[in-house]
Amino acid sequence: MTVLGIDPGLAICGFGLLETRGREIAHIRHGAIRTKPGAALKDRLLTIFDDLTELIAAFSPHEAVAEEMFFGKNAKTGLPVAHARGVALLALAKAGLPVYEYKPAQIKQAVVGYGKAEKRQVMEMTRCLLKLPKIPRPDDAADALAAAITHINMRGTR
Amino acid sequence: MTVLGIDPGLAICGFGLLETRGREIAHIRHGAIRTKPGAALKDRLLTIFDDLTELIAAFSPHEAVAEEMFFGKNAKTGLPVAHARGVALLALAKAGLPVYEYKPAQIKQAVVGYGKAEKRQVMEMTRCLLKLPKIPRPDDAADALAAAITHINMRGTR
Repeated sequence: MTVLGIDPGLAICGFGLLETRGREIAHIRHGAIRTKPGAALKDRLLTIFDDLTELIAAFSPHEAVAEEMFFGKNAKTGLPVAHARGVALLALAKAGLPVYEYKPAQIKQAVVGYGKAEKRQVMEMTRCLLKLPKIPRPDDAADALAAAITHINMRGTR
Repeated sequence: MTVLGIDPGLAICGFGLLETRGREIAHIRHGAIRTKPGAALKDRLLTIFDDLTELIAAFSPHEAVAEEMFFGKNAKTGLPVAHARGVALLALAKAGLPVYEYKPAQIKQAVVGYGKAEKRQVMEMTRCLLKLPKIPRPDDAADALAAAITHINMRGTR
């Protein structure tokens, strides 16, 4: 089964593709969709939607995962992120993918084993679990992979 | 020229279609796309996108208008609205429509002639300018019509 994790943002939308092989998790690919800061909002949203749709068509994931968005300290940056997240979820819906959402603490718990882990620890454990030579870049792609790992682990324990 | 005004929201996405005929503004249609509160976020976004796409195909507007979204007091409700606004802007972008955005004060100024007008005054003036028997319902549709009126007025004064 192939799982697509996403970490949406307006400037950078991270993604990570993992495959379960028995009890193993294999890393397929990770990266980010980037949009130009100077471009019109609607055109940036179009880039995110089209690129994500293309990615889904190329890798045919079976399930998709995103971190839950909560209203926190960075409320002002939350609006552009939520615009991007809307079109990303739409791309998943258009492709008929089931979408699972996890809270930040659930992701930390699943990846590091501690719900209050530091961001750096989550990234290092993501690298380690996926047997990658270095921490995936950009951070948004690492976060997307962590979300995908979380889903695979939660799935296994259901 | 046909102008489509939108007032996006996750539960209710208001729209209003106006046509300019010389110096006259003619009311074509207004209404709202509604989504079920109990449905999954991605499915609600899909409804908004598909229904708006259908509306655009049916009326072939030349330009689209939306109120600018600002980070205000209702920051917590802003996240779902921004998700909906993202897919609404995407539908406009997919249709190749130019999109114009106006600040709330610009809309009040254009419709009532006073940038700090009350919401009720804007609605009553919208009704009056469009020669409608009563204030358009729901409020979101009235807001969408007000945005469209603003654009037509601003266009004329450019």
